[in-house]
Amino acid sequence: MKQLVVGIDIGGTNSVFGLVDREGNMYGEGVVPTRKYPDFDQYLEELFIGISNISKNVTEEFELVGIGIGAPNANYFDGTIWNAANLVWKGTVPFVEKMKRYYPNIPIIITNDANAAAIGEMIYGGARGMKDFIVVTLGTGLGSGFVSGGRLVYGHDSFAGELGHVIVNRGGRMCGCGRKGCLETYVSATGIKRTAFKLLADHLEDSEFRNISFNDLTAEMITKAALNGDPLAIEAYEYTGMMLGQALADAVAITSPEAIFLFGGLAKAGKYIFEPTKKYMELHMLANFRNKVKLLPSGIDGKNAAVLGASALIWQEREQ
Amino acid sequence: MKQLVVGIDIGGTNSVFGLVDREGNMYGEGVVPTRKYPDFDQYLEELFIGISNISKNVTEEFELVGIGIGAPNANYFDGTIWNAANLVWKGTVPFVEKMKRYYPNIPIIITNDANAAAIGEMIYGGARGMKDFIVVTLGTGLGSGFVSGGRLVYGHDSFAGELGHVIVNRGGRMCGCGRKGCLETYVSATGIKRTAFKLLADHLEDSEFRNISFNDLTAEMITKAALNGDPLAIEAYEYTGMMLGQALADAVAITSPEAIFLFGGLAKAGKYIFEPTKKYMELHMLANFRNKVKLLPSGIDGKNAAVLGASALIWQEREQ
Repeated sequence: MKQLVVGIDIGGTNSVFGLVDREGNMYGEGVVPTRKYPDFDQYLEELFIGISNISKNVTEEFELVGIGIGAPNANYFDGTIWNAANLVWKGTVPFVEKMKRYYPNIPIIITNDANAAAIGEMIYGGARGMKDFIVVTLGTGLGSGFVSGGRLVYGHDSFAGELGHVIVNRGGRMCGCGRKGCLETYVSATGIKRTAFKLLADHLEDSEFRNISFNDLTAEMITKAALNGDPLAIEAYEYTGMMLGQALADAVAITSPEAIFLFGGLAKAGKYIFEPTKKYMELHMLANFRNKVKLLPSGIDGKNAAVLGASALIWQEREQ
Repeated sequence: MKQLVVGIDIGGTNSVFGLVDREGNMYGEGVVPTRKYPDFDQYLEELFIGISNISKNVTEEFELVGIGIGAPNANYFDGTIWNAANLVWKGTVPFVEKMKRYYPNIPIIITNDANAAAIGEMIYGGARGMKDFIVVTLGTGLGSGFVSGGRLVYGHDSFAGELGHVIVNRGGRMCGCGRKGCLETYVSATGIKRTAFKLLADHLEDSEFRNISFNDLTAEMITKAALNGDPLAIEAYEYTGMMLGQALADAVAITSPEAIFLFGGLAKAGKYIFEPTKKYMELHMLANFRNKVKLLPSGIDGKNAAVLGASALIWQEREQ
C-alpha cells in the first residue's frame, strides 16, 4: 500500500499542510489560518478536520505513516513550541503531546522551519546522498540547518543552527534579539532593505527607491530592480553577499560541509546573490577548504518547499 | 581477558604512546622522537618496537583491541596525515595503511589532536554522558573538537573543528594561515604573548616583561605572573578571555552545546582565563542560550591527556 506522510508548515499567518509520498509528490493540500485560532485546542481541531478532508480525497488506498511539522521555535526533543514571537500562542505549547490525542499510533515530529528545510533538502532536494551540508533559509530573518554525518545538528536543547545570530559586525546593526551586528540584520529580507536605505543615505545618485518609504519597500522590489540592472539594488546585493560569504567561510571552518544551499526569497536574485557570496566566501576561506565547498540554490525551493521539508522529517527518521 | 588499546600522540618533537584500558588506566608508556625519523617507514618500525616493548612488560594477559592516534592534520576518513607543518614528513603520509602491515587484524583510527581530546573527554573526562559539547585545546595554536548527538563532527573532509581559524577581528592580527584576525592569533600561547606585547606598547607602567624579548617570553611566564597578581598579565588574560568568550557565544549559536571544555596551557591560569571568558561569553550570548552552557576545565587534562584521547578513539568506535 502507498505510504504517505502529513507535512505541516506553521507560519504566523497560515498553517499549510499536505500529504506527501517518499518521492515528494503531493496528494492534496490545505490551509488553516493560524492567526485566527489563539485557542490552541481549537486550532488543532481545525487542523485535524483539514487533514481528514484532504485524506478523504486521495483516490488510492494509503497508509498514513507519520506527521512532520516545521514551526518557529519548535523543540525537536520535547515536541513543544516555545515562545515563538510570530505565533498567536504564547508560552510553551505542547504541540506533539496534544496532537497525539488525534493520532495516537503514528510518529509525530516537530522541529524548526530551517531544520525541516535541511532535512527536506536531504530527502528530496540537492543534498540527496550528502552527509555534511548547511541549508541557509533567507526569509524575514536568516535561519539555518546544519547536517553532520547524515544527522541534523540539534544541539543540547534542539536550538542549534542559529547562524542568523552569529555576530558578524560587533557594535553593528541593532537586532531584534537585543544584540548588535547579527548576521540576519544584514542578510535577510529585512537586512537588504536596511542596506538599501544605507546606500540611499551614503550615495547621491537617483534611484527608484528614493520615492519609497522603508515600510513600503520590500526585498522583492530590490530583487526585481537588481534583475533589471539597477545599480543601487545590485550594490545592495553585493554587500549582502559579502556579509554572507564572510560568515559562511567561518561556518565552513567549524563544520566543513560538502555544500551550502541557499533557500528562500533572497536566493531568487540568482547571480546577484550567489556571485558575491561565493566570491567573498572563497576570499575569506581557510586554505584547507578553498574552492571545495559548493554554494547551491535549494533543490526544493518553491511553492511546497516548507511542507515537503516538514514531511521529510518522517522519512528521514524511518531511514535511520 | 583484559582489553587494552594503544594510544599514540604524535607531536613534532616526540610521539608518546601508551597501553590504556577502558577506565583510562595506563599499562606502560613509551616515546619515539618523531623529529629523528624523516624516513616514515623507519619511524613506524621504531614505533612498532616501542609498542612491543611496553606490551611485553604488562604482567597480566591482555587482548590488544585497537590503536588510536592523534596527530596534526590527520584525516579520519582516509587514515592519512596531510601536509602537517610541524612534522618532518612532507606531503601525504598514508599512516593507517602502512601501520596495518604491522597490525593487520585490529582497527587503527587516526584523527587530529583536538578531535582526540574531545573523544577523550567523552570517554574518560568531564563529558561522560554528554552528547553535545565542544573541547577547545589551547596550545601553540587553538584547536577544537565538536561533538553533536554523541558523534564527532568530522565534516565532509574530516577537517571540521577549525575554530581557531574563525575570523574574530577582520583585518586584525596576521595569522600563520595567511589571513588576518583568526581567533588563534588572540587565544593561544602565541596569541597571549602578542597581547602582552601590545599592552607593553600601549601602557607606560613598569612590568617584569619589559626586560624580556618576544622570543624569550612564554605563555607560562604570563600565567605565572597572573597567578602572582601582576596587573599586565591579568589584563592580558582578561583580553584573551574576552576574545574567546565572544567567539564561543557564536559557536554556541551554531551548535548549542551542553558544555565547553578548555584544555591545555592557557586553561592552567584558572580563574584568570575562566572568569573573563565566561563573562564575555554570557554578555554576547543569544538570549536562548544565556546561562545554560557550562564552561569547564578539561577532565583529562594532565600528563597523559593526549595519549588517553587517542586511545579513546577506539573505545568510542566500539561502543557506537
